[in-house]
Amino acid sequence: MAQKTALIVYAHQSAGSFNAAVRDVAVEELTEQGYKVLVSDLYAMNFRANATRDDIIGDLKNPELFQYGDEMMHAWMEDRLSEDIVAEQRKVEEAELIIFQFPLYWFSVPAIMKGWMDRVLAQGFAFSLEKMYDNGIFKEKKAMLSFSTGATQSMFHPDGINGDINITLWPLQNGTLHFCGFQVLAPQIFWSPVHCPPPVRTAMLDGWRARLKELLAEKCLTFAPCELFDLTFQGGFMLRPEVKEERESQPYGISTGHHLGKPLPPDNQTKAQPADENSRK
Amino acid sequence: MAQKTALIVYAHQSAGSFNAAVRDVAVEELTEQGYKVLVSDLYAMNFRANATRDDIIGDLKNPELFQYGDEMMHAWMEDRLSEDIVAEQRKVEEAELIIFQFPLYWFSVPAIMKGWMDRVLAQGFAFSLEKMYDNGIFKEKKAMLSFSTGATQSMFHPDGINGDINITLWPLQNGTLHFCGFQVLAPQIFWSPVHCPPPVRTAMLDGWRARLKELLAEKCLTFAPCELFDLTFQGGFMLRPEVKEERESQPYGISTGHHLGKPLPPDNQTKAQPADENSRK
Repeated sequence: MAQKTALIVYAHQSAGSFNAAVRDVAVEELTEQGYKVLVSDLYAMNFRANATRDDIIGDLKNPELFQYGDEMMHAWMEDRLSEDIVAEQRKVEEAELIIFQFPLYWFSVPAIMKGWMDRVLAQGFAFSLEKMYDNGIFKEKKAMLSFSTGATQSMFHPDGINGDINITLWPLQNGTLHFCGFQVLAPQIFWSPVHCPPPVRTAMLDGWRARLKELLAEKCLTFAPCELFDLTFQGGFMLRPEVKEERESQPYGISTGHHLGKPLPPDNQTKAQPADENSRK
Repeated sequence: MAQKTALIVYAHQSAGSFNAAVRDVAVEELTEQGYKVLVSDLYAMNFRANATRDDIIGDLKNPELFQYGDEMMHAWMEDRLSEDIVAEQRKVEEAELIIFQFPLYWFSVPAIMKGWMDRVLAQGFAFSLEKMYDNGIFKEKKAMLSFSTGATQSMFHPDGINGDINITLWPLQNGTLHFCGFQVLAPQIFWSPVHCPPPVRTAMLDGWRARLKELLAEKCLTFAPCELFDLTFQGGFMLRPEVKEERESQPYGISTGHHLGKPLPPDNQTKAQPADENSRK
């Protein structure tokens, strides 16, 4: 049987950082499970974040009006994407599991990692009008966010000053990963490690190692399945009328029902968020 | 009286693009209103997105463990930030109004613009633990997102396949702009201009020009005011107990009440979203 592959897309500037330690735990643990582990260390690679004409080898389809998305799709079809993008796409194709490891910058990934998403996940390679969400190109693969925060956990509680962390993660977890078809594992969140004493940081790493042992057996996040929607331009890619009618008769109506707000069942939540457990010790 | 200043942070690669036309309308209209208009054309500037040690002049506080946020705060205090960052910070200080003009990439800003946020909005300059949200450093200034999409409007309807556009914009509008104190104007959304015939695109630009004439008189987006929260580490930066109790007695409870989901009143909405009006014509 062919060896399984995992890819860690990693964005921290310092080899001595907590994020580096988290990455190392994942490399060790997944290697022990028999994975071949690839790491894209974006700062070390000096990965270019900006989406430019240099991403395309040879002539543009429309040199008068450069439309990045269109040009990238054509370049992908004709094998004319820049070498650094192709190298990352090969890793994505090979991997069954992708972990994005980063410190949260402005409620999102650092720009260098956003650049990886903008440039590598090109139309044709990562999605098409026919292949997205449940029907997405990478529906056989799993992906997850693993990140450290400056904020405390309570700040990102639904009652906290920053609002529910699940809303903050929506553009990444739904709009990017699930859009490309990935099965999305619950995020691994390290709450404010910089403000924690060393034993707590060690416990966080131990929790991460324990989670990794069972990671692939976890239930993934649930999103509204495509079949609820009328996926035609006439139908506007909106909820089917009969679904809307059914949902509106439910206690909280449509607004909270179909997209966000499907928490994991309690038993999975415990497994999926060891960082929570540690913070209670 | 001193001249008012507006800043347009602009991210598109092509001078012939719809985003460029939208920018030009803003420059013309605001200049006509007496503004001095500054434009940061990020691709033309080859603006560096990656947050690195090069952003800091001179020695690091902690060379063994590079912590970007901390180092940037110290460098800001000691006037040791790199020249390109300082130039952008001067523009932000001078401006009363900032417009971010971009095409939506992966439910967010393009990486080059995320890099502007990561690097320019440094702790000390743009926020501190005491000065954020309502009490934020830029509370006398207004800011807004203005962007084009590939998706149609119905896809980002609350019932659409992509979910409510307001959720997608949360990390930018609340987590970044409002976090720094900016009064946030309703977003200007150009739905899928690339799929619209030229007369519709022209009507979109006309709508934008009309909105700009009254822009500064618009009611800004509302966010949960800081006074609802206990802004101490003991209180966890969470809703005050008496507020929580009061909210829970309201029809939809806490989960939909305090953060998202305060739409503009109908009369303001009409003014604020001319793109909607045009699409109905």
